[in-house]
Amino acid sequence: MAGKAHPVSPLAPEGLPELPAIAGVELGAVEAGVRYKGRTDLMMMRFAPGTVAAGVFTTSKCASAPVDWCRANLEKNSNARALVVNSGNANAFTGKAGAAAAKTTAVAAAKLVGCKADAVFLASTGVIGEVLPAEKVTAALPRLATTLKPERWDEAARAIMTTDTFPKAAVRRTDIDGKPVTIVGIAKGSGMIAPDMATMLSFVATDATIPADVLQPLLAKAADKSFNSITVDGDTSTSDTLMAFATGKGATHKPVAKLTDSHFRNFRQAFEDLLVELAQLVVKDGEGARKFVTITVTGAQNAKAARKIALTIANSPLVKTAIAGADANWGRIVMAVGKAGEKADRDKIAISMGGRLVAEKGAVHPRHDEAAATEHFKGTDISIEVDVGVGKGSATVWTCDLTHGYIDINADYRS
Amino acid sequence: MAGKAHPVSPLAPEGLPELPAIAGVELGAVEAGVRYKGRTDLMMMRFAPGTVAAGVFTTSKCASAPVDWCRANLEKNSNARALVVNSGNANAFTGKAGAAAAKTTAVAAAKLVGCKADAVFLASTGVIGEVLPAEKVTAALPRLATTLKPERWDEAARAIMTTDTFPKAAVRRTDIDGKPVTIVGIAKGSGMIAPDMATMLSFVATDATIPADVLQPLLAKAADKSFNSITVDGDTSTSDTLMAFATGKGATHKPVAKLTDSHFRNFRQAFEDLLVELAQLVVKDGEGARKFVTITVTGAQNAKAARKIALTIANSPLVKTAIAGADANWGRIVMAVGKAGEKADRDKIAISMGGRLVAEKGAVHPRHDEAAATEHFKGTDISIEVDVGVGKGSATVWTCDLTHGYIDINADYRS
Repeated sequence: MAGKAHPVSPLAPEGLPELPAIAGVELGAVEAGVRYKGRTDLMMMRFAPGTVAAGVFTTSKCASAPVDWCRANLEKNSNARALVVNSGNANAFTGKAGAAAAKTTAVAAAKLVGCKADAVFLASTGVIGEVLPAEKVTAALPRLATTLKPERWDEAARAIMTTDTFPKAAVRRTDIDGKPVTIVGIAKGSGMIAPDMATMLSFVATDATIPADVLQPLLAKAADKSFNSITVDGDTSTSDTLMAFATGKGATHKPVAKLTDSHFRNFRQAFEDLLVELAQLVVKDGEGARKFVTITVTGAQNAKAARKIALTIANSPLVKTAIAGADANWGRIVMAVGKAGEKADRDKIAISMGGRLVAEKGAVHPRHDEAAATEHFKGTDISIEVDVGVGKGSATVWTCDLTHGYIDINADYRS
Repeated sequence: MAGKAHPVSPLAPEGLPELPAIAGVELGAVEAGVRYKGRTDLMMMRFAPGTVAAGVFTTSKCASAPVDWCRANLEKNSNARALVVNSGNANAFTGKAGAAAAKTTAVAAAKLVGCKADAVFLASTGVIGEVLPAEKVTAALPRLATTLKPERWDEAARAIMTTDTFPKAAVRRTDIDGKPVTIVGIAKGSGMIAPDMATMLSFVATDATIPADVLQPLLAKAADKSFNSITVDGDTSTSDTLMAFATGKGATHKPVAKLTDSHFRNFRQAFEDLLVELAQLVVKDGEGARKFVTITVTGAQNAKAARKIALTIANSPLVKTAIAGADANWGRIVMAVGKAGEKADRDKIAISMGGRLVAEKGAVHPRHDEAAATEHFKGTDISIEVDVGVGKGSATVWTCDLTHGYIDINADYRS
């Protein structure tokens, strides 16, 4: 991990967007030396009093100590005053010592911010099985706490990176009942990317005023459409964490009472769009990724079945290697549809690539143009559409190809 | 496919064992030119009247035409007089034309053997989505049918290969109530190897007399311990087929009335052993495999949960690449245990590698010797043992590492 620098993903955007301050959020990063040398590895956000938190976490049965910590906090209350995130060490599968290290970190941060420890949220990402050296974190925190500023989103995005080859952030300006509000989010990947949760870490903050009982379902629903709809290698981290913080320190707007309030619609859409953008950035930095792939399944029994089929296609090593080799091998897509275990009518399946019909009614299309399909697969932005012919359920997921780069990165992660 | 010859797997055995004749079975292979040039691609077995068949097939929702054909036959009766298998074309996702091609093949074989078409079993392996050119098969069948002999098992094993780098066969001599009986089986892999079914094709014949209502559960139970306990890449073929044929033409033995007959115990064990050997051979020829990996899970809620956890470890790209890189990365094993979704007590999990304890009670073992674990991972025969600390269920599965070779083979399969 960070032993070798890997070249920046060819799918990376040109740079970070301009990331505005969010009223009520101050943040920054510092070099704590947890594992890496010569780069920042500790990130902190301080939230104004009144900030509300929501979270979606890994489904792993072996969740990390920080995930346990956050879940326990959210069960008690949604009050958030600080977020502390380190990279280089996941503090996962570390037993009681790991839990103690998490608590030590939270207590130290709480003292600096002047709040209770249960208003401090934590995340750790990196190597599994080694207890977080909390003393390195607590030694660095006071220094960090004095330098927090509202505009340091880019530093925060960089400090949480592990094998990521570029920092990931997105911004949306929208409104609630005509009053301007802003959302900024950062994320990091890029291995063990799979539902549920898909990304390892993502943090989103807004200056809007959103009650906890709206923020949590807002986040959960948007996560399904974004981070739970991407996959790199189908593996599930012990540490996946997506959190949202609403400070309520922006322009005063008409109160939001429920998720379906019509004056909340713009915000909901912007929030979901932002999460989709972040999730797609994670895929674009998938380990070894050279192609970005959009898979849309229609005609499934329901949306859940459609997503399962789409993810089975997206996770198939045979489909992913075919894409890597620019081989428009729709037979492997049929294989994956069959493997998904959801209802599909073999004799009605239709498959398109790049919008061009390749197969329909259980057989190759009579005018299938393999050269055109191959040409599409030679590009970096691949789309595959599959109709499974049994219902009206649909879903879109995003993935990348499986290349030699994935093997290179993962066969020497700890060396 | 067969476009490039891949080097023989380093895990291949020295050669085929000596394969004896099975009374009541004549077989052979011929070059039909279905897709490949300069090699045999059509295999036929002729069975004596009275031969009983059993089968276990892919769970894919998009099964191939030959799989549909075999299933329909077995629903009607278990009478088997011939088996016809081609390589190079899977006749899968080929709609009505594919079903017609399968029927044409069966009818032609039935005429040559002098039986009904529903006593002919079929299998096809190779590229998906192209209708089997039945005329090539029916043109070659008469020639093939005149050259069938009891000792041509090795030719049969070679004719069914696709990306396999070595032919696979196994033999067991055992007894039923003291009377000698023989079992011979052949198999082919090597991509799309995953439960359920794990191998693409395997055919086993014995001269014992076994009624259909014993042969089928015998095969199904042994399949669970063998082919359904291996995985190469987690993908599921549309064509996976395992069939057993009992000719009843060997030494006369005490009749077998049920699976649990005590005089049938030796045979059951030998049959299961043979399937395990064949399944392991498939793994040893896994695409790009350089290491053979045995994963044993104990302490699970039940055997099914244990197998699911073991297969999740075995299918994890991150575990498989760590093994490829000789990185004894037990953190990724914890990740996979968590991902499996079965009950596991994080704070009781124990992990051993090569019999040496690496982690226990939710943390790394105090005397964990990373150098020794790495040394074990540098070998070609890796073992990983995981106790998940909640019950008495156990299971063993076999897999291989994920290497650059896998990408090489699969990114240019059709080129």
